Amino acid sequence: MSERAVVLVSGGLDSATALAIARHEGYACHALSLEYGQRHGVELEAARRVAETVGAVEHRVVGVDIGAFGGSALTDATRAVPESPTDGIPITYVPARNTVFLSLALAWAETLLARHLFMGVNAVDYSGYPDCRPAFIAAFERLANLATKMGVEGERIEIHTPLIRLTKAEIIQRGTELGVDFADTVSCYQPNEVGEACGRCDSCRIRRAGFEAAGLPDPTRYQ
Amino acid sequence: MSERAVVLVSGGLDSATALAIARHEGYACHALSLEYGQRHGVELEAARRVAETVGAVEHRVVGVDIGAFGGSALTDATRAVPESPTDGIPITYVPARNTVFLSLALAWAETLLARHLFMGVNAVDYSGYPDCRPAFIAAFERLANLATKMGVEGERIEIHTPLIRLTKAEIIQRGTELGVDFADTVSCYQPNEVGEACGRCDSCRIRRAGFEAAGLPDPTRYQ
Repeated sequence: MSERAVVLVSGGLDSATALAIARHEGYACHALSLEYGQRHGVELEAARRVAETVGAVEHRVVGVDIGAFGGSALTDATRAVPESPTDGIPITYVPARNTVFLSLALAWAETLLARHLFMGVNAVDYSGYPDCRPAFIAAFERLANLATKMGVEGERIEIHTPLIRLTKAEIIQRGTELGVDFADTVSCYQPNEVGEACGRCDSCRIRRAGFEAAGLPDPTRYQ
Repeated sequence: MSERAVVLVSGGLDSATALAIARHEGYACHALSLEYGQRHGVELEAARRVAETVGAVEHRVVGVDIGAFGGSALTDATRAVPESPTDGIPITYVPARNTVFLSLALAWAETLLARHLFMGVNAVDYSGYPDCRPAFIAAFERLANLATKMGVEGERIEIHTPLIRLTKAEIIQRGTELGVDFADTVSCYQPNEVGEACGRCDSCRIRRAGFEAAGLPDPTRYQ
């Protein structure tokens, strides 16, 4: 029987590739998406498509109301999404998001007795988010082994971040090799209701440049 | 102006005392309760009363659907709450609960620019939960400082666990000194609809013994 893994799947390009890598490595993948008050709910539909086409065993969407705290352009409709690069940590940063997401993945993993977690974080094109850095992931792995019944009982929990050192172009190349259809994914911070991308926000710009650098056609549906 | 703190308030005896200590130390307290699919929803009503009477600046209840993962007698109505002590980690353990709770407190703290978090965990009468130990709290504090914009920008985030080395009797004595009305709190794992305690579960037993050891009258409303 395959070992189980919980894979965080957002509906974006990176997590689709992380899921494909986990499948390629032979894990039985339990895909988890969080509904956290994000403005762009079409990403959950994209996550459902990705989980199905890449071949997760199951896909769950779990609600967590961090949008209620405010503080980010991604969850607060009164804040504009920036359309030009900014210095430092951008307004699209969602407070403690990856900590909350990994915690929920850990909760499910513990219920499933899965000791592997996958997350498509990336420290190269990471837009300045503190919770995408290798030091953060290492600290979370250490915490996970102290926090849980599995950890206490000697099962070593591992947080896999196979994209953390890759450029966006390398992620796109790897995903393509593994058969990911990136037309299923949505990266845009402000897509329209049918999931078409704006082409102007930070995330769209990074994605488009990635396809160009990879020398591959960009299947994104733009508005 | 007082420094801000986010205080996790469950509606139980421990977190009521932790809130009273944070108030006593001069913090402006933002009380956070999580609605996580717990069977005993009366604890949220207790949390509201505690936040008000102990004097929080505000109280928020935020939904997080970890009950959807199953795995605990506290969120799964098909599992019986044990009424006699068990060896090891009991069935009332909720997978990764304190990790999820601290993550959400951290998300709110970051939005508030509060660098203090209070949690009423206790390593003495902790019923065998791995995420109540000092090593877990230290690992979370380390993570918090790596995970957040505040941490990256040099504000030191502190996780305060003023009860961690106290016995239940000492917690009850300290809370009583600070004016906490423990009749407002609910500790029972299976209270009835009006918040009356069963008197038989692990949590009721530990609480009742605490009042006895403290030499104080037990104001708990039993069924």
